[in-house]
Amino acid sequence: MKIGIIGGTGSIGEGMAMRFSQHHTVLIGSRDVQKAGECATECTRKLADRKIPCELSGCLNQEAIDRSEIIILAIPYAYVAPTLKDLRGLEGNIVVSPVNPMVKADYVYYAPPPEGSAGLAIRKLLPPAARLCVAFNTIAAGRWRDLESPLEYSVPVCSDDEEAKQQVMRLAESIPGIEALDGGPLRASSMVETLTPLLITLGMRNNRKDMGMRFISPQGGGNKG
Amino acid sequence: MKIGIIGGTGSIGEGMAMRFSQHHTVLIGSRDVQKAGECATECTRKLADRKIPCELSGCLNQEAIDRSEIIILAIPYAYVAPTLKDLRGLEGNIVVSPVNPMVKADYVYYAPPPEGSAGLAIRKLLPPAARLCVAFNTIAAGRWRDLESPLEYSVPVCSDDEEAKQQVMRLAESIPGIEALDGGPLRASSMVETLTPLLITLGMRNNRKDMGMRFISPQGGGNKG
Repeated sequence: MKIGIIGGTGSIGEGMAMRFSQHHTVLIGSRDVQKAGECATECTRKLADRKIPCELSGCLNQEAIDRSEIIILAIPYAYVAPTLKDLRGLEGNIVVSPVNPMVKADYVYYAPPPEGSAGLAIRKLLPPAARLCVAFNTIAAGRWRDLESPLEYSVPVCSDDEEAKQQVMRLAESIPGIEALDGGPLRASSMVETLTPLLITLGMRNNRKDMGMRFISPQGGGNKG
Repeated sequence: MKIGIIGGTGSIGEGMAMRFSQHHTVLIGSRDVQKAGECATECTRKLADRKIPCELSGCLNQEAIDRSEIIILAIPYAYVAPTLKDLRGLEGNIVVSPVNPMVKADYVYYAPPPEGSAGLAIRKLLPPAARLCVAFNTIAAGRWRDLESPLEYSVPVCSDDEEAKQQVMRLAESIPGIEALDGGPLRASSMVETLTPLLITLGMRNNRKDMGMRFISPQGGGNKG
């Protein structure tokens, strides 16, 4: 698959690029084409140091959209609307939101927009033909970037487009360690987006870093790790 | 510790009673004293069949409160206010809410009251001196009752009373397999209560039963199962 990462020079975007480019063609998108190129070079070097081949290059966000089948919005919630405003051509594309609106106080809490979730708000910002999925919410930037460790995560995927959801679930499971789960319709995305502020709160309160989660089923039906 | 379970004859209450009574003195509370007694007898028999000793008896909800240090509200959210209205003497007690307000549609979603969570709404219903903790939210009734399997769960505990929180964390960790985590203040309980409707949705959509979750930390800091 061809994956375009909007905001791909950020910490989480760079980590995603290094993971996905081992199995797919990845375009790191940025508003700054030079920064995108430098980031792609640096990621390629890190992978080459570990003798891992990859397909990775940098370009403008718009070019990443024009040349990809799946677009990942690797940007904080506050930047989503201003970023999408300037971009075109998302009709028919699969758009993936790993975005979690949250606020840091004495703990970190989920702060969804009036639509009910970032996913539902982004739905309104996209052309109707864009195929939105919410996925990869809980994987911390540090875990994406830590190439020595497999990503032992359960990844729920929410969407109203069942075919797009299946494609994103396949994309998720192309990364070793990840188990993709059908997370239900886009309306269910508020529950998935809640996981990350909870994980950060638990990390803060229990002196853990980059916490993740694995869903478990009894009788060996799921993954007990 | 002396544990009183309000609504202890229900499916989840009975399961909790069988688990906790192996390590603590448990009173199964009910509005119907005969039903409470029968449930205690049945639970004791099930444990005796497995040669597991227990300390377990049945009584009215009010007596369970009067004779216990920790009170668990093992009742659906809709029954909490009418049940608490008739009960007295919760001042100074530790009260544990595993309650998750949720609605079943084509998926199951979190439906918190206007206060923001069941925990915050229950806080208003209790006397100010009651020491409320939100805990044990994600453990399905079927898992509590399946005595052959350890409860491999992470249990976040939310409270504004740090000492009560520590006691409930110790209570949780007295059950083999459970890892207790500080879940932050009571305001954070909405994120914890969200986990159960999400788990049920994931179970429905992915043909899994009684799904649970384990939080994981890299570098062996947490529990990878």
